Amino acid sequence: MTDLSREHAAALDAADPLASFSGAFVRADPELIYLDGNSLGRLPKAGAERIARVVRDEWGAELIRSWEHWVDLPRRAGDLIGSALLGAAPGQVAVSDSTTVNLYKLAMAALDARPDRTVIVTDDDNFPTDRYVLEGIAAQRGVELRVVHADIDAGLDLDVLRDNVGDDTALVSLSHVAYRSGALLDMAAVNEIVHGAGALVLWDLCHSAGAVPVRLDATGTDLAIGCTYKYLNGGPGAPAFLYVREELQGRLRQPIWGWFGQRDQFAMGPAYDPVPGVERFLVGTPAVLGIVAVEEGVRLLAEAGIERLRAKGVALTGYVIDLARAWLPGLDLATPAEPERRGSHVSLRHPDAWRLTQALIEEKVVPDYRTPDRLRLGPAPISTSFTDVWDGLDRLRRIVETGAYERFSAEPSRVT
Amino acid sequence: MTDLSREHAAALDAADPLASFSGAFVRADPELIYLDGNSLGRLPKAGAERIARVVRDEWGAELIRSWEHWVDLPRRAGDLIGSALLGAAPGQVAVSDSTTVNLYKLAMAALDARPDRTVIVTDDDNFPTDRYVLEGIAAQRGVELRVVHADIDAGLDLDVLRDNVGDDTALVSLSHVAYRSGALLDMAAVNEIVHGAGALVLWDLCHSAGAVPVRLDATGTDLAIGCTYKYLNGGPGAPAFLYVREELQGRLRQPIWGWFGQRDQFAMGPAYDPVPGVERFLVGTPAVLGIVAVEEGVRLLAEAGIERLRAKGVALTGYVIDLARAWLPGLDLATPAEPERRGSHVSLRHPDAWRLTQALIEEKVVPDYRTPDRLRLGPAPISTSFTDVWDGLDRLRRIVETGAYERFSAEPSRVT
Repeated sequence: MTDLSREHAAALDAADPLASFSGAFVRADPELIYLDGNSLGRLPKAGAERIARVVRDEWGAELIRSWEHWVDLPRRAGDLIGSALLGAAPGQVAVSDSTTVNLYKLAMAALDARPDRTVIVTDDDNFPTDRYVLEGIAAQRGVELRVVHADIDAGLDLDVLRDNVGDDTALVSLSHVAYRSGALLDMAAVNEIVHGAGALVLWDLCHSAGAVPVRLDATGTDLAIGCTYKYLNGGPGAPAFLYVREELQGRLRQPIWGWFGQRDQFAMGPAYDPVPGVERFLVGTPAVLGIVAVEEGVRLLAEAGIERLRAKGVALTGYVIDLARAWLPGLDLATPAEPERRGSHVSLRHPDAWRLTQALIEEKVVPDYRTPDRLRLGPAPISTSFTDVWDGLDRLRRIVETGAYERFSAEPSRVT
Repeated sequence: MTDLSREHAAALDAADPLASFSGAFVRADPELIYLDGNSLGRLPKAGAERIARVVRDEWGAELIRSWEHWVDLPRRAGDLIGSALLGAAPGQVAVSDSTTVNLYKLAMAALDARPDRTVIVTDDDNFPTDRYVLEGIAAQRGVELRVVHADIDAGLDLDVLRDNVGDDTALVSLSHVAYRSGALLDMAAVNEIVHGAGALVLWDLCHSAGAVPVRLDATGTDLAIGCTYKYLNGGPGAPAFLYVREELQGRLRQPIWGWFGQRDQFAMGPAYDPVPGVERFLVGTPAVLGIVAVEEGVRLLAEAGIERLRAKGVALTGYVIDLARAWLPGLDLATPAEPERRGSHVSLRHPDAWRLTQALIEEKVVPDYRTPDRLRLGPAPISTSFTDVWDGLDRLRRIVETGAYERFSAEPSRVT
């Protein structure tokens, strides 16, 4: 039986080996409980300083001469993400474009690599932009997008996947952690199914990178993409990352032939001749301010260590679940209860989830809402304390008990 | 006969109605002569302040709640660019992705709109990333990329274009101002040729936007893209813009189906259903820090006024040409001499252009080098004075006269 006192939360914080990282982030309003680190990660103090320095000293003072080192940023930030968070040896990760554009590039490249196959497999609980991109590619290429059913609480059943991947399958594209439920897929088991059928696998790591140890090399993953503005704390719209397994790089060619993928780029030669390495998956001029912020965010995660971040994520989400079970009988858990089957966020189901979200925000607790009836709580391990969780759930309990949420509109407006 | 004295340069500055805008930019080193505004524009003081404010007050303090207004940035910045610089009515320009990705999206959409046609036309002096993207699309779609010859000093001859555009042509994609020579094409005349053949036109405005008045609506342009880190002063790797003529928007569908193009985005519905407006050409999460910097850069240009910027650009480049002719007999003009046929930069040809570039940088003059033998001087109208031009050319004259450049390596290293 969990000790439900606030003192217990404070004791958990006192024993937390990562507690000091909280001080590495800007906290403009000390009363704000931020439980949406899985949507937009907090601002690292070092990130704010680095951006200011790059703006002033590099763009402002050195101007164009800074490209001498800026040109290395996509690969340098990629290697940092790869080694610290993704279990990827150097030379396989680059930071570039948006998650959506990267998914497009790699999925198109994968289809080219399996020209005799006609099916892309994904699931119906995959993140919308993933489904849309794959739908667009299927339409463009005249292949089938086979959308298998995944439970929106429990995630994809591997038997369903196994039944739908075969000789006809070129590519399987799935999210490692489901954006709504937080359900965590077994990457090694999925890869085995996909590779057993001779297909390629492309993972979306948006909701796992930085929160769950990812072992891309060890699991034989072919391709992966993910975003940097959630657990990686790279800031709003920071560029995404992509991973291409080394041995595949020379055999894959992405569809957007841009000058940052070109061999001897500034020779500006007549024909496209991509570099041999992971940079062949780059396209246009890198978003410098975004990438330097990513470096600072990831450096903090590297220092904390992904195993410790995962342990704390399990503890924080477990604590959310315990408090919700004790205090919120009207809200059902919509996330796997077993720690090894979930990522680092928890969804709770309630018919008035949208109103609860609005009421919480008014009470200075920031969660987010996901259709149709989910209140999603994402306590980022690096910047969230157990007391934050206690206070957030305590405020939620009061909102539910008093019915204070009922005065909010039941109709979701534009939200993120 | 031009007055070659430095006093004359000072008199031109005294008479310059845009002279005060120089103070709107950070000048870390007052001795630095920056003649590469056509590659990376200077840092506006307002841009540095806005970035800092967005980082601190919006990302840092408001966190995810800032998306309520960030979500409007692509369209808002697009409308500002469109009205101030491109002659485009609202609702036709958006800021998104890199120039290269935007070119890919719009060129692919154009091919879909002309399914019975099999040719894309461009010229061999077009910017490398444009040629590579079109080459990749041609390979992917099984269409012909017809690369017509353009003179690298004088630009594309319209008779050559006319002879190569016909019933088979789906798309003509050209740069408004040539990246190397600065040659300026007649947009209205090109559009007439292209539309006469029933094809679509896609302009790259990277080297004209912010320096040359562009009249997209008035010339009946179909599609355009361009970058924001040159004359628009949006900073390194800031996101690019795209233009789609209003009446075409509903009929075109781009190939990368992302959630930021989706109708009722946060309903996260099962199938892609793009919004009716220009936002259907958006893809992933917008790069917030980049876009806000673009807004600040463009605001300065809007205040200066594009006609006045053009008049100053003509005067500055004319002054470069006059001084070069008087002082630098060993360097040939590689840019059209007629003001109405050039953009806002000047190229000079010299067998040791690379060495001259290095020697100039050591003397605190920043030009850039372009293959094979061009020294490119881009005095951005908003932030460059006539005295800057005089001092820069004076230092170049001394480098040439003393042979000081000969100790630099003749071999270009990695440059931008």
